[in-house]
Amino acid sequence: MKFLKTIEVKKFKDILFSIPRIPLDKEFIPLDESYNRRLYEDIKSNIDVPHFRKSRVDGYAVIARDTFGAEEDNILSLKLVEKIEAGQKPTKKLNNGECSYVATGAAIPENADAIIMVEYTEITRDKVYISKAVPPGENIVNIGHDIKKGELICKKGQLIDLPTLGMLASCGLKEVPVYRKPIVSLMSTGNELVPVGKENLDIGQIYDVNSTVLKKAIENAGAKVSYLGIIRDNFEDLKSAIDRGLKESDIVILSGGTSKGEGDLGSEVLKNYYDVEILIHGVKMRPGKPIIFTKIKEKFVFILPGFPTSALSCYYVFIEDFLRKNSGLPLKIKNSLILEIGERIYSIVGRHEFKPVIIRKDDGVDKIFPIKTGSEAISTLFKADGYIEIEELESIVEKGEKRRFFYFS
Amino acid sequence: MKFLKTIEVKKFKDILFSIPRIPLDKEFIPLDESYNRRLYEDIKSNIDVPHFRKSRVDGYAVIARDTFGAEEDNILSLKLVEKIEAGQKPTKKLNNGECSYVATGAAIPENADAIIMVEYTEITRDKVYISKAVPPGENIVNIGHDIKKGELICKKGQLIDLPTLGMLASCGLKEVPVYRKPIVSLMSTGNELVPVGKENLDIGQIYDVNSTVLKKAIENAGAKVSYLGIIRDNFEDLKSAIDRGLKESDIVILSGGTSKGEGDLGSEVLKNYYDVEILIHGVKMRPGKPIIFTKIKEKFVFILPGFPTSALSCYYVFIEDFLRKNSGLPLKIKNSLILEIGERIYSIVGRHEFKPVIIRKDDGVDKIFPIKTGSEAISTLFKADGYIEIEELESIVEKGEKRRFFYFS
Repeated sequence: MKFLKTIEVKKFKDILFSIPRIPLDKEFIPLDESYNRRLYEDIKSNIDVPHFRKSRVDGYAVIARDTFGAEEDNILSLKLVEKIEAGQKPTKKLNNGECSYVATGAAIPENADAIIMVEYTEITRDKVYISKAVPPGENIVNIGHDIKKGELICKKGQLIDLPTLGMLASCGLKEVPVYRKPIVSLMSTGNELVPVGKENLDIGQIYDVNSTVLKKAIENAGAKVSYLGIIRDNFEDLKSAIDRGLKESDIVILSGGTSKGEGDLGSEVLKNYYDVEILIHGVKMRPGKPIIFTKIKEKFVFILPGFPTSALSCYYVFIEDFLRKNSGLPLKIKNSLILEIGERIYSIVGRHEFKPVIIRKDDGVDKIFPIKTGSEAISTLFKADGYIEIEELESIVEKGEKRRFFYFS
Repeated sequence: MKFLKTIEVKKFKDILFSIPRIPLDKEFIPLDESYNRRLYEDIKSNIDVPHFRKSRVDGYAVIARDTFGAEEDNILSLKLVEKIEAGQKPTKKLNNGECSYVATGAAIPENADAIIMVEYTEITRDKVYISKAVPPGENIVNIGHDIKKGELICKKGQLIDLPTLGMLASCGLKEVPVYRKPIVSLMSTGNELVPVGKENLDIGQIYDVNSTVLKKAIENAGAKVSYLGIIRDNFEDLKSAIDRGLKESDIVILSGGTSKGEGDLGSEVLKNYYDVEILIHGVKMRPGKPIIFTKIKEKFVFILPGFPTSALSCYYVFIEDFLRKNSGLPLKIKNSLILEIGERIYSIVGRHEFKPVIIRKDDGVDKIFPIKTGSEAISTLFKADGYIEIEELESIVEKGEKRRFFYFS
């Protein structure tokens, strides 16, 4: 077992980054629910799109050769044999000298090989007068023009965004094979915690903020949460909750239980596992130092500090991208911005810092400003628009520097 | 009634922007489901956070005066009367000469006014030896330190992000008052359309792509979709579907029925309403020109072209931000990027263009590149990473220019 005590943030990020994706099985889900999921296999179309020849315009389907020679001073006439609206099936095959009206998107009758737009025609009862010749193929969308039957339309691993949803719908797929979501068992530990909503807190009790916040954070990163509740702060209860999490899910995230006092159960419980491959205890970060991470065979356990601000900092800095990588959602850098620092920001040397900041317009440009009344309470995060990370050896981030800013996802 | 035929994109955007937010009622929802919703009213805390005095550290709660004079060469001793773990209620009031062990986060006994960290103590049975004096208040988190009872914690209108969720959870709110979501009635029109998933398409039939794609797009913009299905392409059916939409929802979005041929029912139906305040028919945009928009009293109707690419273009350019403004989600500019054009992009003068583009690294920087094999099919959008908008009078966007790029949301 590799046991690492109080490592650098960068090193921890590298370790997490180097871990291969969790193997995830296939599941079939309705296309309607497949947005932001990842395809488990290549998808080929079972149909041609369109699967019939259709018209690009409102006009008359003709045999092109019948129109040759038509021009404004040489009007030709054709016999109208049918009107075909979008969605209708043509019933009459064209003979020479005949035409059928076709609406935009309507199917084209047999033998027709071109469409004359209505603009170049006049109609009286069943005679259509045409003032323009059209070459074969004019205004016809051929079978398979958009997508051919058997064509590879989407690749294994592809994230289903709106246009992909459109592609799959075009081919009529009702269900799609996707990777199942990574499952995260979430719990809070601490005898002081009570569920949000319980009335009349007793002395010593506080609400379990982390479950509410982390549950949503984890879902936003594309994982499925299995909530195991509030766990009492003793070895047996914690061990059996982690056992259950390891058995039922891919990743276990719990908060609380990392303090350095007598209550530091988390690492005791984890050391107890037979097949621990790596154990990290503590990261040089502020806030969030006492984070614990373990890899046990193909499963992962994160133990976050109990303070909501610290727990959320650890989540953003380490866990969010770990989950995104596994669920296949874009990493958080995609929605980050490079912005200028609008006012000097101080930091503590020797600790990587998670710094909640605000964005304010300055000279018409969005810039990053520090929050003045910082405390460890969640109310400091609340005042922020997002955060920056400040490296271990920086004591000052100077006005005018450019930094990467992340929104709270 | 103001009837506007084929207006500029900018003018249409201005009209949409100038429309006040739809008035939305209050609803109470569980805190767990309130992420990305907007608070309907100011929220004050019903409790102090913390609501008891608690310890910042693992240590001993003392009467500060009892410690005065203690130093490394003047060890004082106190009698240990109780051990208080986090979550426990102290049962013993301190008398002079006494102390109680308190874990981090634990409640502090009556009469105690400071905590000495364990680091400055030694213990033998019930005697605690201290080597440091502490002033009153040391290591104590006072009642209401984070949030005071009655304090305004969140303002009316505020979007509930993760830190806000944390604030509300800290105060124990189980339910929160939020603006209800704007409701959008969605339908597709066209006799050629069949639901995605139906097997064996008949000649003339195509799958209803727009319902699948727009449903998710509208939900992503924070609105609730009421899906009214595929509507037959005739005046009565369309009228009664729009009637139902106007009655049951705030906004009606339908696709299809805007073509300029015989099937242009949408505007006929809308003109028929008695209290139409504004009617826009056609926008100088490509693709998506024939979009129709109506304001009828406080309700809104958008009729989008039937082609999926055109429908989605109109959605992104006009509707997405209209919905976001009303649901209270950030406008799409928030997740856009200013990027350099990596290769000349051509556009048609006289039409505002919605241009699907790809992002590729060039000299190590993300740049915008055109898609070469453009067609009207959804497969062109599918190849793109997102889009840029090109103004009506531009024929070329030159390599090296900077443009705002939007991801497909």
